[in-house]
Amino acid sequence: MSIVAVGTIGYDTVETQHGSVAAALGGSVSYFALAARFFAPVSIVAAVGTDFRAEDVRLFADRGIDLRGMVRREGPTFRWHGRYHEDMNIRDTISLALNVFADFMPNLLPDQHRADYVFLANISPDLQRHVLDQVASPKVVAADTMNHWIANDRAALVRLLPRIDILTLNDEEARMLSGEHNLVKAGRAIIKMGPDTVLVKRGEYGVLQFSKDAMFAVPAYPLEEVIDPTGAGDTFAGAFMGYIARKGVINEAVLRTAVVYGCVLGSFVVEQFSVKRIAALTWEEIEVRYRAFIELTDSHHSRWTSQ
Amino acid sequence: MSIVAVGTIGYDTVETQHGSVAAALGGSVSYFALAARFFAPVSIVAAVGTDFRAEDVRLFADRGIDLRGMVRREGPTFRWHGRYHEDMNIRDTISLALNVFADFMPNLLPDQHRADYVFLANISPDLQRHVLDQVASPKVVAADTMNHWIANDRAALVRLLPRIDILTLNDEEARMLSGEHNLVKAGRAIIKMGPDTVLVKRGEYGVLQFSKDAMFAVPAYPLEEVIDPTGAGDTFAGAFMGYIARKGVINEAVLRTAVVYGCVLGSFVVEQFSVKRIAALTWEEIEVRYRAFIELTDSHHSRWTSQ
Repeated sequence: MSIVAVGTIGYDTVETQHGSVAAALGGSVSYFALAARFFAPVSIVAAVGTDFRAEDVRLFADRGIDLRGMVRREGPTFRWHGRYHEDMNIRDTISLALNVFADFMPNLLPDQHRADYVFLANISPDLQRHVLDQVASPKVVAADTMNHWIANDRAALVRLLPRIDILTLNDEEARMLSGEHNLVKAGRAIIKMGPDTVLVKRGEYGVLQFSKDAMFAVPAYPLEEVIDPTGAGDTFAGAFMGYIARKGVINEAVLRTAVVYGCVLGSFVVEQFSVKRIAALTWEEIEVRYRAFIELTDSHHSRWTSQ
Repeated sequence: MSIVAVGTIGYDTVETQHGSVAAALGGSVSYFALAARFFAPVSIVAAVGTDFRAEDVRLFADRGIDLRGMVRREGPTFRWHGRYHEDMNIRDTISLALNVFADFMPNLLPDQHRADYVFLANISPDLQRHVLDQVASPKVVAADTMNHWIANDRAALVRLLPRIDILTLNDEEARMLSGEHNLVKAGRAIIKMGPDTVLVKRGEYGVLQFSKDAMFAVPAYPLEEVIDPTGAGDTFAGAFMGYIARKGVINEAVLRTAVVYGCVLGSFVVEQFSVKRIAALTWEEIEVRYRAFIELTDSHHSRWTSQ
């Protein structure tokens, strides 16, 4: 079951306590696709500029990512420059240039119209709707959003929510969108706004998943060193959505395993700058860390109880 | 297997967004004992003043807590006045008076000298050592500490650590004690300072447990309403230590279940001001929430996987 994913592909300049990279491959849909491809075929919908490097095209193509929907437009590629504090939960945007993404209104390819799985990365609710309108009868639609759209484009976002099955956002954004400070109340309030499942991403503190009749909480995989947190949320979403597309059904068991794979892939991507770690990742590494994650969080039914 | 616990018993004035209480029963060992008593007999070592209320003596006694080591001294009981921010992870101490606790140097009772399980609540490392010196051959010693002692009494604390089996502290304190910003490195560094097990309490984000060859991470139980976070850490420690004393052995399975019971009891105590909720708690309520907690965190082997 293949996934159509719309979002940004960009060149990021990132500074952390551990160093920096300039004009490195980034963007929400880059991270998403490089994680999702381990589980299901992914088709990217995005715009890049004339400066988009051939090596980055190859990086996607060599990993089986479908680039027919990646439009090359006149002008420079989307660029972002960010600087993380020592507390990596805080970052400053030094500059942001939408460039060729600014007025991008994609037309899906004929086969993308028939997509079963759609991921709308963190772009304007109107652009998310524009893409979704072109998909005939999606089985599962997941979307990400952020404080900027909640504050400045709330009406469009709220109109879109009943068409979204799975919404991902962080804890501050969940509070903003719901008007509830308490996260449990916030999660339940957002469920009432449309999505069947709400995933609250809490960075180094893990993920809280709300569904109609269950709550699921997992910590993040504790790492000895975080080099660059950029893309962790989109990588999480990629593995999460990829697993769901591979299974072809949604139930609580599938959702929970999908969250764990999301955390596992998210824990890899932050180990190096840009998409470096996730581009080089192997399925064997994923499986080893998946087992380590289960062991890390297993309070009950594990090998421990037989000791 | 009974537990000897030393710490403060006090009268707290607490203000939160949800209201306030004045001169309500509090103190580290009060919370500890009221949680631990569900699992094992507890014997308190503490000092109270002439103003200590008969109803509070009864509250402990009615719940089977051994008060022979609770010394009544001339003067007022320990008092603390705190105010929580809307973000309840932050609180200001408005006033603190040690009162009869100031120069308290307890002498254990003969049977307490033979204690198998010892809990040293968050008091000065010298007082912790003074108590520990009197216990002939404890099986398990757990201790709590805080930033104040790490900053101002570091040498005494570091000398004590090799005699501690289980150390509890929060993430900021783990960083201070170890000099490592990263929590995984911090936990491992503290293990090298003596304790076999280090429990990093992260408030609403749960607990990270480090032992010699394993790491265990659990989220906190998500609550719709937190009325008063005071005592959550000591309540956690009480249930944790109580469960270990009841089992009579330490291994990874016992430690993990102990952490879950700690989180469960900790999730109750914050639902009301002071010790109110934990004093009224029943074993049936604990069991229901224990099962809910397992379901909340169960990523793998649960009823979900059979769906």
